[in-house]
Amino acid sequence: MIQKIEHLGIAVKDLEASLQVFEALLNTAHYKVERVESEGVSTAFLKLGESKIELLQATNETSAIAKHIIKRNEGIHHIALAVDDIDAEMKRLAALGFELLHPEPLAGADGKLICFLHPKTTNGVLVELCMDKK
Amino acid sequence: MIQKIEHLGIAVKDLEASLQVFEALLNTAHYKVERVESEGVSTAFLKLGESKIELLQATNETSAIAKHIIKRNEGIHHIALAVDDIDAEMKRLAALGFELLHPEPLAGADGKLICFLHPKTTNGVLVELCMDKK
Repeated sequence: MIQKIEHLGIAVKDLEASLQVFEALLNTAHYKVERVESEGVSTAFLKLGESKIELLQATNETSAIAKHIIKRNEGIHHIALAVDDIDAEMKRLAALGFELLHPEPLAGADGKLICFLHPKTTNGVLVELCMDKK
Repeated sequence: MIQKIEHLGIAVKDLEASLQVFEALLNTAHYKVERVESEGVSTAFLKLGESKIELLQATNETSAIAKHIIKRNEGIHHIALAVDDIDAEMKRLAALGFELLHPEPLAGADGKLICFLHPKTTNGVLVELCMDKK
């Protein structure tokens, strides 16, 4: 089941500067900073209702965020949907014709299991499924 | 106070086709279709936790959505934040240096009062404040 917007991922050039912007905008302090080497990103999280804002800065030139910044500049990078059963949702969505970017869930930031869907099957929106590790 | 993600606005070329995609993705039917002449858009809404997905199709060539499609193609267009007091938030954010796109709240879709912030002061993210009309 798709439960809620888990987070919205925003590509930024300078994590510290952007944290100040989003802390001012949302009038709240961030609660976590995390470096995810496997994805080539430094991330910071702010709470927003039942959802979160995830700011992402590239830590190397080959990361997806570095490519996004070159191609589209800063801005919203992806929407992450919380699911209760990631294997069941991956199976359901693949059967409906959505293209999964990897056949098995990966370990993501913030202690999650994740799977991305190709934006070509979701109207240009990069969608991430994510579930808390059990 | 900033309360939650009220909705995420997604620019699409064909509202009917995209509704099918997002109904399949979220495994839920849309609950509303609304044409907003003042904005030059047809919109459709789907519930997602405490938030909503708003699909937006341009109804004329001068609408912001038509321009977004030409410049950036389909994809996430804006994030809308629910606020309890839009006048107070506009005043707070203007004082912090965020640029408001209009000096007074406007009437938006879904029975809301809204105000957009210029993306140049929000890391390339188009942010909308919105409040239920009282």
